[in-house]
Amino acid sequence: MLNFNYSIPTKIFFGKGQIKVLGNQLKLYGSKVLLVYGGGSIKRNGIFDKAISILKENQINYWELSGVEPNPRITTVRKGIEICRENSIDIVLAIGGGSSIDCAKVVAAGYYYEGDAWDIVVNPRKIKKVLPIASILTLSATGSEMDVFSVITNMDTNEKLGTGHPDMAPKFSILDPTYTFTVPANQTAAGTADIMSHIFEAYFEKTKEAYLQNRMAEALLKTCIKYGKIAVEDPENYEARANLMWASSLAINGLLSYGKRSEWSVHPMEHELSAFYDITHGAGLAILTPHWMEYVLDDSTLDNFVEYGINVWEIGDNQDKYDIAKQAIQKTKEYFISLGIPSTLREVGIEENKLEKMAQQATRYGNVGNFKQLNTQDVLNIFKAAF
Amino acid sequence: MLNFNYSIPTKIFFGKGQIKVLGNQLKLYGSKVLLVYGGGSIKRNGIFDKAISILKENQINYWELSGVEPNPRITTVRKGIEICRENSIDIVLAIGGGSSIDCAKVVAAGYYYEGDAWDIVVNPRKIKKVLPIASILTLSATGSEMDVFSVITNMDTNEKLGTGHPDMAPKFSILDPTYTFTVPANQTAAGTADIMSHIFEAYFEKTKEAYLQNRMAEALLKTCIKYGKIAVEDPENYEARANLMWASSLAINGLLSYGKRSEWSVHPMEHELSAFYDITHGAGLAILTPHWMEYVLDDSTLDNFVEYGINVWEIGDNQDKYDIAKQAIQKTKEYFISLGIPSTLREVGIEENKLEKMAQQATRYGNVGNFKQLNTQDVLNIFKAAF
Repeated sequence: MLNFNYSIPTKIFFGKGQIKVLGNQLKLYGSKVLLVYGGGSIKRNGIFDKAISILKENQINYWELSGVEPNPRITTVRKGIEICRENSIDIVLAIGGGSSIDCAKVVAAGYYYEGDAWDIVVNPRKIKKVLPIASILTLSATGSEMDVFSVITNMDTNEKLGTGHPDMAPKFSILDPTYTFTVPANQTAAGTADIMSHIFEAYFEKTKEAYLQNRMAEALLKTCIKYGKIAVEDPENYEARANLMWASSLAINGLLSYGKRSEWSVHPMEHELSAFYDITHGAGLAILTPHWMEYVLDDSTLDNFVEYGINVWEIGDNQDKYDIAKQAIQKTKEYFISLGIPSTLREVGIEENKLEKMAQQATRYGNVGNFKQLNTQDVLNIFKAAF
Repeated sequence: MLNFNYSIPTKIFFGKGQIKVLGNQLKLYGSKVLLVYGGGSIKRNGIFDKAISILKENQINYWELSGVEPNPRITTVRKGIEICRENSIDIVLAIGGGSSIDCAKVVAAGYYYEGDAWDIVVNPRKIKKVLPIASILTLSATGSEMDVFSVITNMDTNEKLGTGHPDMAPKFSILDPTYTFTVPANQTAAGTADIMSHIFEAYFEKTKEAYLQNRMAEALLKTCIKYGKIAVEDPENYEARANLMWASSLAINGLLSYGKRSEWSVHPMEHELSAFYDITHGAGLAILTPHWMEYVLDDSTLDNFVEYGINVWEIGDNQDKYDIAKQAIQKTKEYFISLGIPSTLREVGIEENKLEKMAQQATRYGNVGNFKQLNTQDVLNIFKAAF
């Protein structure tokens, strides 16, 4: 196990009706709130009205940054920073999924940064101070509600980049599984794939002595596999929604990666797809993951895949190791298909003639991943296999 | 899954050489430190000298509360409070295992309490404010390094009681697995049993829809089973010591119990054994646990034991459920014996004529446990079976 410094300070208020804590929690930080949210779904399902009524009851003033895109854009972040500065905002409250929370995080960090906000996306070291952030989660996927990261897209440059800072962890997040009852099947499926991909990024790594972390990763994978299917088929199943919601937070808050090397593989590749085509992040991940697995499977990674097959997919251990590994990859592929996620890049509208450009972009800062390092040609090969 | 409010604010500095952070971390809270520790082991293995040299380098003044007992006593707590008050201590730093940390916690809470410190053990609600606490861990067992609890013994009344407060979570804990290399085999074994018992207390509970929590509990149990044995046989095995150390913290910091009902069974019974006889807590737990399991196994708890048998002990699922459950209990018993832990109460010096008195004490506030509620006669039956 590698050395690590653990810090997960976000408070989580989990369960039905937990929005009741909103007023008191916000007032710990001030009385001027910027609400950050996306489209109209939180208005249709009543969550927005509920939050507003609590703000009013508590004499909390609020401003709004609405229309945050599914892949949140730096242009929207800039608007949010302006509102914060004009009104001396005390705390930024995202209501929504990862997009709204990611946007809120860079708004909160950009508030204290004098230059253009894109600078702190490109170079997280420029972040020195961050406004308090909180969230009300409505989609189980990115884990942004409990982590320090944010991914922002710059459509001018076709770039989608991750940034992060310890102070970008939300002060608190409200996780009410009933808020995800209205998430449509395709978004539920993509969210589940996103959670699983976060787990994979921590799990497929060679620090073998991180036994505890690997067994916990398997616990979370089994949870996703069991409940992703149920939530797609039975959207108001509280047990399924609750297990997925808590898995989304634990998958990426550090619990699985502390003590291991962390260098992601599939996410950096997928980011290029959604930077160029604005596709659903989780669908892109689900399409690429099995092909990435097939591509990196060799003698040096075999044992990881065997462990995965036996412990997650319950494949009998009395078989050839490569057979176990290949079955596990096949089961992964079939699982994503069973959730209704497209299985090829062409199905989501990606053009073959862009693959090379995207592979170049994915590797412009060097090889991708550490489990098995991938150069431009490797990434292109994976894109082609997934096409 | 039940509603929960998650908060685990303790920072963990994990790994070899992490004591290097001690000076800077302490200075965040002040310059006057009370060191709380037990016997001479930290002086023999150099940890004490290392800590002192860091304090001196950083111009941090320190006072000492030494001689904390294995089951820390309220008399020692009172001494610590006196030192804190006389010297306006800023932070209480425990160096040692759970005993020293538990003692430090009630010293820190007692500092602000005007009455006698035993009051805040008997009634945690009287705790209103707590001095900052930190720890350098030297034994993987109680999890006190990352939780809000403390157990203190009053030898005048033969009482051993738990108390707790959110502010009793250490601000930071330093977990260097090499500091446990010198822990003798019997203490390593008892520590492993203690960790496993914390996991069992969360795991054997009937909130079935807490699937995620139960799979994580199994991940931790497998870790203990694998590495407890290795650490007993090969005390300087870093991988084993690291996995056990991190498991000790995660077992009881709330991760496994958030979202479930939590009402402990075996701990309250064992506390009477060590209150009356000052035996090693973990050994008492290991002796009682299999007998408690046998006693509570019935149709209402069967499924939990079957899950335990299949997922933790890898017993084939193509058998009669009761057979699986009984095999799992037998394997638990055999495992503790394989660690060298005594398997009967008489072996650790407990007298048969005290069993009834201890059973009465264990149930003086009502039935024990919730998985299956145990009255005085039930507890006595378990004590007799374990005698």
